Amino acid sequence: MSAIPEDFVHKTAQLSEAATRPFPNSRKVYVTGSRPDLRVPMREVTQSPTLTSGEPEENPPIPVYDTSGPYTDPNASIDLMAGLPDLRSGWIEARGDTLQLDGPTSAFGRARQSDPALAHLRFEHLRTPRRAKPGQSITQMAYARRGIVTPEMEFVAIRENMRLDELRADPRYASLLRQHPGNAFGQPLPEQITPEFVRDEVARGRAVIPANINHPEVEPMIIGRNFRVKINTNIGNSATTSSIEEEVEKMVWSARWGGDTLMDLSTGKNIHETREWILRNSPVPIGTVPIYQALEKVDGRPEELTWELVRDTLIEQAEQGVDYFTIHAGLLLRYIPLTADRVTGIVSRGGSILAKWCLAHHQENFLYTNFEELCEILRAYDVAVSLGDGLRPGSLADANDRAQFAELETLGELTKRAWEHDVQVMIEGPGHVPLQMIQENVTKELADCFEAPFYTLGPLITDIAPAYDHITSGIGAANIGWYGTAMLCYVTPKEHLGLPDKEDVRSGIITYKIAAHGADLGKGLPGAQVQDNALSKARFEFRWEDQFNLSLDPERAREFHDRTLPHDSHKVA
Amino acid sequence: MSAIPEDFVHKTAQLSEAATRPFPNSRKVYVTGSRPDLRVPMREVTQSPTLTSGEPEENPPIPVYDTSGPYTDPNASIDLMAGLPDLRSGWIEARGDTLQLDGPTSAFGRARQSDPALAHLRFEHLRTPRRAKPGQSITQMAYARRGIVTPEMEFVAIRENMRLDELRADPRYASLLRQHPGNAFGQPLPEQITPEFVRDEVARGRAVIPANINHPEVEPMIIGRNFRVKINTNIGNSATTSSIEEEVEKMVWSARWGGDTLMDLSTGKNIHETREWILRNSPVPIGTVPIYQALEKVDGRPEELTWELVRDTLIEQAEQGVDYFTIHAGLLLRYIPLTADRVTGIVSRGGSILAKWCLAHHQENFLYTNFEELCEILRAYDVAVSLGDGLRPGSLADANDRAQFAELETLGELTKRAWEHDVQVMIEGPGHVPLQMIQENVTKELADCFEAPFYTLGPLITDIAPAYDHITSGIGAANIGWYGTAMLCYVTPKEHLGLPDKEDVRSGIITYKIAAHGADLGKGLPGAQVQDNALSKARFEFRWEDQFNLSLDPERAREFHDRTLPHDSHKVA
Repeated sequence: MSAIPEDFVHKTAQLSEAATRPFPNSRKVYVTGSRPDLRVPMREVTQSPTLTSGEPEENPPIPVYDTSGPYTDPNASIDLMAGLPDLRSGWIEARGDTLQLDGPTSAFGRARQSDPALAHLRFEHLRTPRRAKPGQSITQMAYARRGIVTPEMEFVAIRENMRLDELRADPRYASLLRQHPGNAFGQPLPEQITPEFVRDEVARGRAVIPANINHPEVEPMIIGRNFRVKINTNIGNSATTSSIEEEVEKMVWSARWGGDTLMDLSTGKNIHETREWILRNSPVPIGTVPIYQALEKVDGRPEELTWELVRDTLIEQAEQGVDYFTIHAGLLLRYIPLTADRVTGIVSRGGSILAKWCLAHHQENFLYTNFEELCEILRAYDVAVSLGDGLRPGSLADANDRAQFAELETLGELTKRAWEHDVQVMIEGPGHVPLQMIQENVTKELADCFEAPFYTLGPLITDIAPAYDHITSGIGAANIGWYGTAMLCYVTPKEHLGLPDKEDVRSGIITYKIAAHGADLGKGLPGAQVQDNALSKARFEFRWEDQFNLSLDPERAREFHDRTLPHDSHKVA
Repeated sequence: MSAIPEDFVHKTAQLSEAATRPFPNSRKVYVTGSRPDLRVPMREVTQSPTLTSGEPEENPPIPVYDTSGPYTDPNASIDLMAGLPDLRSGWIEARGDTLQLDGPTSAFGRARQSDPALAHLRFEHLRTPRRAKPGQSITQMAYARRGIVTPEMEFVAIRENMRLDELRADPRYASLLRQHPGNAFGQPLPEQITPEFVRDEVARGRAVIPANINHPEVEPMIIGRNFRVKINTNIGNSATTSSIEEEVEKMVWSARWGGDTLMDLSTGKNIHETREWILRNSPVPIGTVPIYQALEKVDGRPEELTWELVRDTLIEQAEQGVDYFTIHAGLLLRYIPLTADRVTGIVSRGGSILAKWCLAHHQENFLYTNFEELCEILRAYDVAVSLGDGLRPGSLADANDRAQFAELETLGELTKRAWEHDVQVMIEGPGHVPLQMIQENVTKELADCFEAPFYTLGPLITDIAPAYDHITSGIGAANIGWYGTAMLCYVTPKEHLGLPDKEDVRSGIITYKIAAHGADLGKGLPGAQVQDNALSKARFEFRWEDQFNLSLDPERAREFHDRTLPHDSHKVA
């Protein structure tokens, strides 16, 4: 018998139709890899033919990278109560280097699981966690370094490649494959993504595959400068708003519009249970900032944080399946005074928490001093670490200053140390940076952090447009992506002002898809221009429906189309 | 007795409150130049003090460049029936090189003026046109070349300088004046804009001041790469929609949000009368594409266009006061075949019209063959010419191709020829260009067209986001502005899909203000960072109202602010 009350079941079982309806004229396709259980999802947009005076000209279907998971597959049966299908457990078990635990090993995880008051909130189909066998290194980086191509690597190779080899062999695509040479700033992209190339990039630390062994539902994806630029979105409840069902709906909504990964930044009630629901239903990697939850455990008092509490939180979340953790281990005690003359001080929430702890105790950041043990935990579950920039600039005035770059240099030191443990690493970046100073961030990150993937928030190129900061930051994001940043953390129109609603999330995501795609085109990612060419041809031929269907937001494009307009392709100037 | 029916009077006399209400906590200030009738408008945003444990710290007022004209001045009395105050006639008359005509000299202008059926539409206070005396060269470029600093030049010097000298001398602004060095791609901006610098830039052809002697209501502004990057907006009725009063409201709306110039692209009814109403009430320079109106005069049949008809249209519009004309004189017959293999052919409306004419007659573009006479007309009224890019790319695929660049080279030839007539010149640019190919457009334009100001539409950095093309193009616009483009033609969310409404116009303008300001910061325009610094300081100190008031769109920022948010400056990641 279910312990979950009827209304809760009803709500979570019913995602909105808006979040799940299939995209128009699209079909979900799966490309099978070297084994039958390796099926890589893509979306294929079918087109209508071009009418000519003679035979109609066929316009071939266009494959589109698809982050939406089974939710847009009409053949998939979605049951939020049961979670998504388990894609990876077979692969993980077959490696024979992990063991299934009896239950959670964190004190907090155990307490939550045995608390009868939480029964009505708890995800029912709890799988016991898995962990590396003692002495085993089970991260994607560990395998890559040993020369092993995992199914996850093959999956992302097929996914990144987007059937480009087939398109090249098919004469219907010849003109659509026309593409301008890119400028990839000294790192030309390969003509084809092979599993071996993926393995090599992961081994070098130039790319990460965030895929915790306890998140077998994830559709593997890769973050690295030699792959498609990715975007992250943020959700999370807070003390004032939101419920579990809303957070799951937001996750599906984010994946629908193109979010490649998602950070759950909840700070409200039932963070643990909310996260479980999200993970069990998420096709995209989930990131968190564990210090946020740790702070809730000490009622918001940073000075009461301890390494032991954070460690327990790391294990708690790792055993649920979080794929990457933001860890602000590079904010050192001696860097804090460097922020004294800033216009906007320390604006990173994690940075601020740790700075308060350091100053309260006059001690070095405990995430730094316990970094070895921290890495051992990450390694046991293959949680990637995203080294946080607690001192990122919160205004143009503070961009690229000594505080920011001192921390970045320490992140480089930590990168090497994490890699010694085979832990996959990303580096977080700013923030607020004017156009002419963006490239220096990338150049310095690549040099100081040995090409570990850079993951930036925007940056905003001006501070004077609150309510439009998806745009101020989208401009910076396109540029920093072009220069070599691997993942862009989205910003919504409500940044600095309030909590985003669903339409804000959609605007933020589409803006960042534009930035990421613009960066791919700028770098010359092979095949990146196919969709542009197809849409432009449709536009020139007045195939309105094809134009809508090939766009990043077909629904909005159709809604904006003014049917009273004369059929005339000319623009106004 | 007025011939204008009561309801028309009522409608046009009543601009919406939304278009005219003063900005919050702002006051209109005027900086007087070397003569009492030279008063340069600016907006000043007052701030609240910072609360400290001791004496409150004063935060000084921040000057903001102001395009909104008298409409936001509570002391101005607005009467659309009478038009705006005449700022420049005294300056123009004092030069003694123009004469007041008895009435319009174009056949069309005379016919419209004497048609009793139009009486109810006609602007009442018709001033007779002014023209250069025979043999006189009365353009701002002509004066500049003769070493004369006109009041218009002094006006724009004060306007561009934005009281920066005063701010530098005032210790309250010391920290707000902190600014990062820019990268202006070999053209460092002067520390202070002097009237002599303005004169020199206009004389070199590196900047234009679009200010027809028949538009004395205009508040002079300058377009050139060594000044603030400007933005243009488009309005215009069409066969299906809009009325005179709507167009005037749109003009005021555009100026309110920051449009520096405005193109009236009307193709519907009563184009002549609509333009008169707009000009008489417009504080910003007005541009047109005269071939659009000429085409209406031949019922939309391009092949029936003649030079005589276009010449009459040029004179008609010049005598009304249009400040710049887009002229597609560089689209040569032999360039048309270069577009044959394009994905999107010829997308410029003007380009398409002229290509059809050329092909129908198998003759060279009559705007090219009559360019000398055309320049003589422009010179007689000081209409600047914006040399149109009729072959601009309409898709990424067609960017930077031979057709586009062949036309650009001809625009360079025409630039020199126009300058021989002292005609001020701008060069129009694309369009659709991926990130890595944008800079080549600027480099080539500056070289081929001898640094004449570049004026681009976007460019869009991807084709796949209809409904978000303000953003796809805003990214390109920020970059092309940074590289040295002088003016950015805005794009609204409805581009490619439909006609923009007021909210679309506002979104387009704010997006382009962000792009232009981002470009100014990128180049290192002195003083550009003051507003960013002030807003960031307000943000850090939780002075919410100051944060809203200092933003590009104070109303939207206030509306988005979620008062339920905890008072916490930390962002979520």
